[in-house]
Amino acid sequence: MSGIKRLVVDVLIPNNIPIDELSLKLSKTKGAEGVDVLILEVERKVEAAKITIEGDDLDFAAIKEVFHQTGASLQSVDRVTCGKRIVG
Amino acid sequence: MSGIKRLVVDVLIPNNIPIDELSLKLSKTKGAEGVDVLILEVERKVEAAKITIEGDDLDFAAIKEVFHQTGASLQSVDRVTCGKRIVG
Amino acid sequence: MSGIKRLVVDVLIPNNIPIDELSLKLSKTKGAEGVDVLILEVERKVEAAKITIEGDDLDFAAIKEVFHQTGASLQSVDRVTCGKRIVG
Amino acid sequence: MSGIKRLVVDVLIPNNIPIDELSLKLSKTKGAEGVDVLILEVERKVEAAKITIEGDDLDFAAIKEVFHQTGASLQSVDRVTCGKRIVG
Amino acid sequence: MSGIKRLVVDVLIPNNIPIDELSLKLSKTKGAEGVDVLILEVERKVEAAKITIEGDDLDFAAIKEVFHQTGASLQSVDRVTCGKRIVG
Amino acid sequence: MSGIKRLVVDVLIPNNIPIDELSLKLSKTKGAEGVDVLILEVERKVEAAKITIEGDDLDFAAIKEVFHQTGASLQSVDRVTCGKRIVG
Amino acid sequence: MSGIKRLVVDVLIPNNIPIDELSLKLSKTKGAEGVDVLILEVERKVEAAKITIEGDDLDFAAIKEVFHQTGASLQSVDRVTCGKRIVG
Repeated sequence: MSGIKRLVVDVLIPNNIPIDELSLKLSKTKGAEGVDVLILEVERKVEAAKITIEGDDLDFAAIKEVFHQTGASLQSVDRVTCGKRIVG
Repeated sequence: MSGIKRLVVDVLIPNNIPIDELSLKLSKTKGAEGVDVLILEVERKVEAAKITIEGDDLDFAAIKEVFHQTGASLQSVDRVTCGKRIVG
Repeated sequence: MSGIKRLVVDVLIPNNIPIDELSLKLSKTKGAEGVDVLILEVERKVEAAKITIEGDDLDFAAIKEVFHQTGASLQSVDRVTCGKRIVG
Repeated sequence: MSGIKRLVVDVLIPNNIPIDELSLKLSKTKGAEGVDVLILEVERKVEAAKITIEGDDLDFAAIKEVFHQTGASLQSVDRVTCGKRIVG
Repeated sequence: MSGIKRLVVDVLIPNNIPIDELSLKLSKTKGAEGVDVLILEVERKVEAAKITIEGDDLDFAAIKEVFHQTGASLQSVDRVTCGKRIVG
Repeated sequence: MSGIKRLVVDVLIPNNIPIDELSLKLSKTKGAEGVDVLILEVERKVEAAKITIEGDDLDFAAIKEVFHQTGASLQSVDRVTCGKRIVG
Repeated sequence: MSGIKRLVVDVLIPNNIPIDELSLKLSKTKGAEGVDVLILEVERKVEAAKITIEGDDLDFAAIKEVFHQTGASLQSVDRVTCGKRIVG
């Protein structure tokens, strides 16, 4: 199957949101096979994270909805990989 | 099959174009098997991206047409890999 | 199976706790398949360690309990990887 | 089969020559299995490229003829790999 | 089998102890499958070494006993990897 | 079979000797399976090259004879790998 | 079989000793499967080399004897790897 196979996004996560819960929620969105939340920097109120999601036909709308519900803030989209196989 | 197997291009993408939609459109051009849109720099009105497309007998004209239709601007061709297998 | 597949955490370990015992205890928590305790810096009373735990459906509560019982102090969560396979 | 298995050359390509056409033409010379044209620098009238050609018993004379016909200028030969298998 | 699968330690080895004999002795402790003694620095009376031991259910007490018997001095434990497989 | 399996040498090649011909000649010496001539620097009259030859029971005398016949000058031997398999 | 599986040593080789002969002689010591002589620096009377020997149950005494007979001078032992498999 095709569609989005990999998403890499920069996200600010408020300190009171457990990282493992956010990662688990993202891993339950449609098509997601693996989610990596990597903390880049811990600031006073938030943690800056780079989140990588891989799978098949990822549902970006559902992913954004998880950010919205948990209070995490999508800062930028770094990378979008599509098609039948991952390249780059 | 031969023809173009890998294209790497530098593109300026206006901020209002969703990266995932551009990536998906490129992945539907003839011969494309994988597309990676990597954002290098976010500027005021555009995002500078390096786009890698791999497949078999890629249709460069169709790829340019996707850029044209979405308003993305092809800045330069970085790499063109042709033949029966990818080298370099 | 899914759940948490990889945890990377920063921990301060008091000097009187043998590293091998802490590593062994962590490897016996539910779901853990491999544990790596890497000492980053030896300070006067504690050693700063980066601990990586991989497995299937890791039990973060049990892991924290091991830190609590041994007197090790969880400083920060660096990375949480979830889903059917490890990415990132 | 033996003969030349890999050639790496530095070439100046006039700006009006499409890179994809040059790459495709090179991939059709005898023995060529893969061609990579990597643009190193874009200058006012030309683009400096490193071209890698792999295959079996490559025809260097035919390759030079492609450069001659397209107006590309062979600057230097960086690497020539010969024999039954690629080394180095 | 589980237990300790990899140990990395810093050791000071007196100059009169042959490195190969120390390495061989360590490789004969219970569970050891491979031992690497890497000399980092040669000082006036001792050589500073990083020793890596891999195997299954390594016997740290027996390893320390080898250091004790040969006159080598365990400076610090750098890394302890446990469980069913090596991670990190 | 054993003997010399890999030779790496520094050679000065006069500018009038085609690199591909030198590489081909070396690939025809006894035991040679692969030859890589990598140009490191182009000087006024010569090109400084690092040449790697791999095979089985390489004939160093014959290789030197090729240099002698073509006018290439062997500057130094960088590496000689012998035995049943390549190490290092 | 176990014993020493990898030795890395620093050796000074007088300029009049052909590197290929030294490498071949080392490859004929008991247990040796591969020998790599890498020249690090060429000085006025000697060449400084890093020599890596891999095999099974290497005979360090025989290796030292080769150095002695050829006039090469063992400067230091960098690494000794023992056991059933190579680690580190």
